[in-house]
Amino acid sequence: MTISYSGNVIRLLLRWKGSIWRAVWVELLIYLFFFYAIRLFYRVGIDLIDETVEGKLRIRGMFESFCRQCDSYTKLIPLTFLLGFYVSNVVSRWWRQFETLYWPEDILSVLCTILHQHDESSRRRRHVIAKYLNLSCALAWRDISSKIRLRFPTVHSLIEGGLLTEKEYNILEATHTENDSSLWMTPLHWIQQIIRKVEEDHKPTPSLLNQFVVELKTFRQSLRKLYSYDWVCVPLVYTQVATLATYAFFFFSLFGRQPLIPEVDSGKDFDMRVPIFTIVQFLFFVGWFKVGQDLMRPFGLDDDDIELNYILDRNVRVSFDIVNHLQEAELPDFENDDDR
Amino acid sequence: MTISYSGNVIRLLLRWKGSIWRAVWVELLIYLFFFYAIRLFYRVGIDLIDETVEGKLRIRGMFESFCRQCDSYTKLIPLTFLLGFYVSNVVSRWWRQFETLYWPEDILSVLCTILHQHDESSRRRRHVIAKYLNLSCALAWRDISSKIRLRFPTVHSLIEGGLLTEKEYNILEATHTENDSSLWMTPLHWIQQIIRKVEEDHKPTPSLLNQFVVELKTFRQSLRKLYSYDWVCVPLVYTQVATLATYAFFFFSLFGRQPLIPEVDSGKDFDMRVPIFTIVQFLFFVGWFKVGQDLMRPFGLDDDDIELNYILDRNVRVSFDIVNHLQEAELPDFENDDDR
Amino acid sequence: MTISYSGNVIRLLLRWKGSIWRAVWVELLIYLFFFYAIRLFYRVGIDLIDETVEGKLRIRGMFESFCRQCDSYTKLIPLTFLLGFYVSNVVSRWWRQFETLYWPEDILSVLCTILHQHDESSRRRRHVIAKYLNLSCALAWRDISSKIRLRFPTVHSLIEGGLLTEKEYNILEATHTENDSSLWMTPLHWIQQIIRKVEEDHKPTPSLLNQFVVELKTFRQSLRKLYSYDWVCVPLVYTQVATLATYAFFFFSLFGRQPLIPEVDSGKDFDMRVPIFTIVQFLFFVGWFKVGQDLMRPFGLDDDDIELNYILDRNVRVSFDIVNHLQEAELPDFENDDDR
Amino acid sequence: MTISYSGNVIRLLLRWKGSIWRAVWVELLIYLFFFYAIRLFYRVGIDLIDETVEGKLRIRGMFESFCRQCDSYTKLIPLTFLLGFYVSNVVSRWWRQFETLYWPEDILSVLCTILHQHDESSRRRRHVIAKYLNLSCALAWRDISSKIRLRFPTVHSLIEGGLLTEKEYNILEATHTENDSSLWMTPLHWIQQIIRKVEEDHKPTPSLLNQFVVELKTFRQSLRKLYSYDWVCVPLVYTQVATLATYAFFFFSLFGRQPLIPEVDSGKDFDMRVPIFTIVQFLFFVGWFKVGQDLMRPFGLDDDDIELNYILDRNVRVSFDIVNHLQEAELPDFENDDDR
Amino acid sequence: MTISYSGNVIRLLLRWKGSIWRAVWVELLIYLFFFYAIRLFYRVGIDLIDETVEGKLRIRGMFESFCRQCDSYTKLIPLTFLLGFYVSNVVSRWWRQFETLYWPEDILSVLCTILHQHDESSRRRRHVIAKYLNLSCALAWRDISSKIRLRFPTVHSLIEGGLLTEKEYNILEATHTENDSSLWMTPLHWIQQIIRKVEEDHKPTPSLLNQFVVELKTFRQSLRKLYSYDWVCVPLVYTQVATLATYAFFFFSLFGRQPLIPEVDSGKDFDMRVPIFTIVQFLFFVGWFKVGQDLMRPFGLDDDDIELNYILDRNVRVSFDIVNHLQEAELPDFENDDDR
Repeated sequence: MTISYSGNVIRLLLRWKGSIWRAVWVELLIYLFFFYAIRLFYRVGIDLIDETVEGKLRIRGMFESFCRQCDSYTKLIPLTFLLGFYVSNVVSRWWRQFETLYWPEDILSVLCTILHQHDESSRRRRHVIAKYLNLSCALAWRDISSKIRLRFPTVHSLIEGGLLTEKEYNILEATHTENDSSLWMTPLHWIQQIIRKVEEDHKPTPSLLNQFVVELKTFRQSLRKLYSYDWVCVPLVYTQVATLATYAFFFFSLFGRQPLIPEVDSGKDFDMRVPIFTIVQFLFFVGWFKVGQDLMRPFGLDDDDIELNYILDRNVRVSFDIVNHLQEAELPDFENDDDR
Repeated sequence: MTISYSGNVIRLLLRWKGSIWRAVWVELLIYLFFFYAIRLFYRVGIDLIDETVEGKLRIRGMFESFCRQCDSYTKLIPLTFLLGFYVSNVVSRWWRQFETLYWPEDILSVLCTILHQHDESSRRRRHVIAKYLNLSCALAWRDISSKIRLRFPTVHSLIEGGLLTEKEYNILEATHTENDSSLWMTPLHWIQQIIRKVEEDHKPTPSLLNQFVVELKTFRQSLRKLYSYDWVCVPLVYTQVATLATYAFFFFSLFGRQPLIPEVDSGKDFDMRVPIFTIVQFLFFVGWFKVGQDLMRPFGLDDDDIELNYILDRNVRVSFDIVNHLQEAELPDFENDDDR
Repeated sequence: MTISYSGNVIRLLLRWKGSIWRAVWVELLIYLFFFYAIRLFYRVGIDLIDETVEGKLRIRGMFESFCRQCDSYTKLIPLTFLLGFYVSNVVSRWWRQFETLYWPEDILSVLCTILHQHDESSRRRRHVIAKYLNLSCALAWRDISSKIRLRFPTVHSLIEGGLLTEKEYNILEATHTENDSSLWMTPLHWIQQIIRKVEEDHKPTPSLLNQFVVELKTFRQSLRKLYSYDWVCVPLVYTQVATLATYAFFFFSLFGRQPLIPEVDSGKDFDMRVPIFTIVQFLFFVGWFKVGQDLMRPFGLDDDDIELNYILDRNVRVSFDIVNHLQEAELPDFENDDDR
Repeated sequence: MTISYSGNVIRLLLRWKGSIWRAVWVELLIYLFFFYAIRLFYRVGIDLIDETVEGKLRIRGMFESFCRQCDSYTKLIPLTFLLGFYVSNVVSRWWRQFETLYWPEDILSVLCTILHQHDESSRRRRHVIAKYLNLSCALAWRDISSKIRLRFPTVHSLIEGGLLTEKEYNILEATHTENDSSLWMTPLHWIQQIIRKVEEDHKPTPSLLNQFVVELKTFRQSLRKLYSYDWVCVPLVYTQVATLATYAFFFFSLFGRQPLIPEVDSGKDFDMRVPIFTIVQFLFFVGWFKVGQDLMRPFGLDDDDIELNYILDRNVRVSFDIVNHLQEAELPDFENDDDR
Repeated sequence: MTISYSGNVIRLLLRWKGSIWRAVWVELLIYLFFFYAIRLFYRVGIDLIDETVEGKLRIRGMFESFCRQCDSYTKLIPLTFLLGFYVSNVVSRWWRQFETLYWPEDILSVLCTILHQHDESSRRRRHVIAKYLNLSCALAWRDISSKIRLRFPTVHSLIEGGLLTEKEYNILEATHTENDSSLWMTPLHWIQQIIRKVEEDHKPTPSLLNQFVVELKTFRQSLRKLYSYDWVCVPLVYTQVATLATYAFFFFSLFGRQPLIPEVDSGKDFDMRVPIFTIVQFLFFVGWFKVGQDLMRPFGLDDDDIELNYILDRNVRVSFDIVNHLQEAELPDFENDDDR
């Protein structure tokens, strides 16, 4: 689920769920392991390779000039920009996906204006239309979200979820041939056919009927757009460029950030044993990169992913609330109030 | 409330309410406290730790090379960019939230075209619809704005605010089961049901009726979008990256900006006693970061937050003005004018 | 008025109205005054403070190391970025405000489809509706634009402008109680009521009638959005950050850009007497910052502000042209042409 | 006309029309002229000014330290950013202008649904409406595009273009008083009046009629927006800031990029005779700046400008194709096909 | 086809299809060839040119100072920014093109509400309208996508594709004179005419009929916008600026990144034989540039291009599914269910 947060700086930094710490700790450990391995090699290992003093000096000298060069390289990698442009792109894509989600109350409210009758048949129809809307959502979301897929591993499992009856399942299976799209579009088509019967039976206001059809289209588009986002990702090369730059930066910094004995001895450098600054940089560069990685697929299993399960439950509840309770509930008797 | 401002540069900088000074003064004091503590340690404290001259020199040398390194680190933190990308993102999110706010005059004007009659029942209905719209707003805004929540701590307190009668409160409580959404949606559903009665009684032009339903949908969407913004924040990792970069920068600058005795003596550095430049940098980097922090939650209690209380009052006043005064007021008798 | 321009680089740079020169010349003079004052102090003043040679040398040395530090500081202020992000933000806000302006021909054309009759009463109604639209604009624009406010200092002064009759003024005053919004909304409500009469008298096509109501809503929204932009500015802290960065930069450059005697003597620096480069930098940084300042309030009195007075006049003229001339004018007799 | 291109890197760079080479070659020659003039002065001219060796050395020394300073200045001008922000802004403005263009097939297709009859009068009306649409375009485009203005120097010249008859010209002249807007709006108003007659004669479906009115509004808005873009340019100061930065950069580089004899002698610098790198920089900075300059006015005479003449011809052809040919053409006899 | 991807960093980098490796390997080989050629010339070639020791030293010295200068040049090329702005621009253009694609289910669902009858003629009409929609797509896409053009080299080849009958082909050829637009617009006009007959025969709800016409307009606009994107590219100068900067950077780095003997000997530089860092830079800069190049024409033959062939097939299948199967299929018998 997306993480809501507030509070001061310290509390902000100390969060764990969905945090930078959780995102990078494994890679930070791996990084530090290599960092200290190289340090060990430099401080101890070189002495073991070559026994002669000149040999040691030569190897150490080569190693040091290699490290200095790596350090100068890291300064040439324009990581900030690249990540800035890349992550901006991904974040706005992520938000557009969230905004694409359709909420059933809009179409169901219109439904209550064209099918407002209180007879049993109208009640059933309202209820069934609400059910089909959520069924269509569940069918489509199964394909784009691992969480929904885990919850409903097969179409048949939607029956337990109360979104499908055995009879409907059979018709769905029969209609659905080889085309994925037709599966989730079928309940929407059913709704359209029920509405046509409503039109015949009750002659609702045509412009409101049209409004309903428009809302149904928006609903269908919402699901299709989610498929599109799932299908057409940020171009692979772009992601690879960002990945390569980030990891190359830290590869070169493995060497470039080693405190070298000549520099330390001459007071130019200071051997802190723990490369605090490099760790801080690792945290924010890799952390930033991970923002991009996680938000690329906003309906997955990560901490910061949008909780489609919760949204589905909320939608089902709100849908039935509107068509069953609100529409049946009594209106306050304002006519005789006197609060003007 | 958001701060309106104009005037020349000096007056602009000397404002207090909603200003950079107010945003950062506490943290600046803390920063300066640590800065001078470190200075004291360097100038005096080191002498107390070790009594031998060599010891002092060695510690001072180590401290100085540590400071130099910190200074070089601060230059490697790409604060400007990071804050640039981060704050742009937050500012545009903030503005979108402001634009999401719905203003009741749009729907109420349409109401006056479909329910323009001057009989008592129509007057009551117009009045009640206006009241329910603002009631729905108040119910929803209570959940997203601390200011509105402070003003109406319970749903019952809306009765004093004149947006609810005791009878309506009871129906609301009865309808409202466990679902938050259904609470604020209920008054909107009531409006829809009143309109259906209007349709039966007065047969308004169908396309205008449809327009009303569309406006009602826009109203509902406005409230739901505010919930969405409240629920799905800027990803936590992104905020943590910006926080970490800003505070790490100033942590390293605590050491890196100390005027070191060797540098001062050799004339390379100048001991200003008051680190003016660092203070200026603190002001604009931390100030900039605070822009992001404050605008993240635009309906809170900060100076620069959008004053929902004022907007609610304005909306109630304008709503009743339109349905009660404007709609009842006399039209100028232009027919006999002669100003062509 | 916004400045239109074209032509080659030299003519572009030599413009005065709305130009960078006009925007910064005062501040540039102040800057140069201080620059030369500091130069005078350095070259002459120091000699007068202290008479001993050592004293002079010491003060000069301190001054020079202070200058060198200031120079290094200016390089650390990321002015370009900050201004880049800030001004982009303001420029897009400015353009959105311009796009928010509503042009009356759209609604008046629809009016001519629902009220196309040529009898005297229809003519009057068309004329009055056009007048009320522009009256509403004038009332609202008075509150957001200093230019319109100067032109119509009181509501009463609109009578001379021909947008209001004495009778209408009285009704307006009576309707208008304490609520600003209700003032400019009143003429729009009048229009709505006239249209209702038109509906009764002429039974226009319902969907066109609806279109008119939608246009009226767009018109109302346009005015309300202008109020919003006027009310909710770019966050003050953001502006202060940009201001502080810009002026701190030039404060430090006052010292940092002084040609120091040792550097000049050693040939490292060249004393140009006139700090050309710093002037160029001043021009484009302060100029850029001024773009942001001026566009923040696009309806003010600056050169580059949008000329609402012109737009109001144009709108009045076009409005009356459409409802009085175009609608009454003869249609070309194409039926008997033979140009196919 | 905008340039379409594809192909590999070399072919891309070798294009001439609309290319960087064409955009900058004149200014590059001027630049190189000054560059070599200064070189000549430095290598030869200084010797001629002063005959004494000390004099020569002093002048050469001053010149060299001036050059070194200029070189350091060029590094401080943040050209990339400034151009980045400026050109992004202009490019998106250019594209929005292109998207503003309205294409007549949308409104004409709707026309064919409300006026589908095959009698002679309906044919004439369809034809005349198509003509008036394009006439309105031509009238408006004359004011914003130099190319269209060249093609139709007077309104009367539209008669030869077949978009106007003599009779219509006279009515247009009579209607058109002093108001530019009313000129291009007149044909649109004629269309509206014809449609009203169609309404009377054929009673088309009201919602389709409304759709036509909406399309007509979109058409009018498209033309008015083009006027707006023409009228409200990118703020002059912004353009001047970009211009000043670009040309100041190259002014300072005239000196700063001179290979100085001491540096060349000491092997620090290399005298390439042809300043390849500076030329490359000139190409891409000035080229980039020119992108902004050219796209500022997208309907002018530059290579990369949008070819309104072509669009007008295409629109006229498509318009008459739709109303005359397509609408009259036979429908395939699919009823008896058997391809299911 | 666009590449979908997920998984950890290593798997991400090791992909081949649509990857950075595939995009740059040819150019990287060419680059390395020149790099080693220059290295060979420097290490060996210079000795062969001049036999005297002084000559060798002089040439080597000149070469080395040339290399040092090239190295400093590469640092002045602001490649990151330029590519950042350029590629952002292209990526958002690419995504807008993808979003422009229209999916036939939206219009076909509306069709099923206005033409829901189950008689044979209605079935045929629904089927034919679905076919014409896809025919229109195929005709338009042939002009903008090389893949679709390869699949359907001539209009006649659409007959085998089942989207056209011989009879229709003949009418199409007869209607189509010299105007490209009229070709793909013809099937859409046919649809409109069929709908008019439907209107006569079945009197569908007018607002739904209008909705159909609006959808048809959206469909037409989608195709026209794709043409526009195809016709008006990113300005050539902009692309040339990006190309020039990228290739100039690597041209100068050919020399600037050579490990020079004096630097290597003095330990300042380290001769790695394989210029790892330069290769990494080449990969991400040229890779990034290639993102821009590939996405410029999103419907071409590249790996990362949008697979219009797949979309066309999917559309045809979904279209016929909706009009033939879904519309004919039985509705679940929910009336007697008892799942409330």
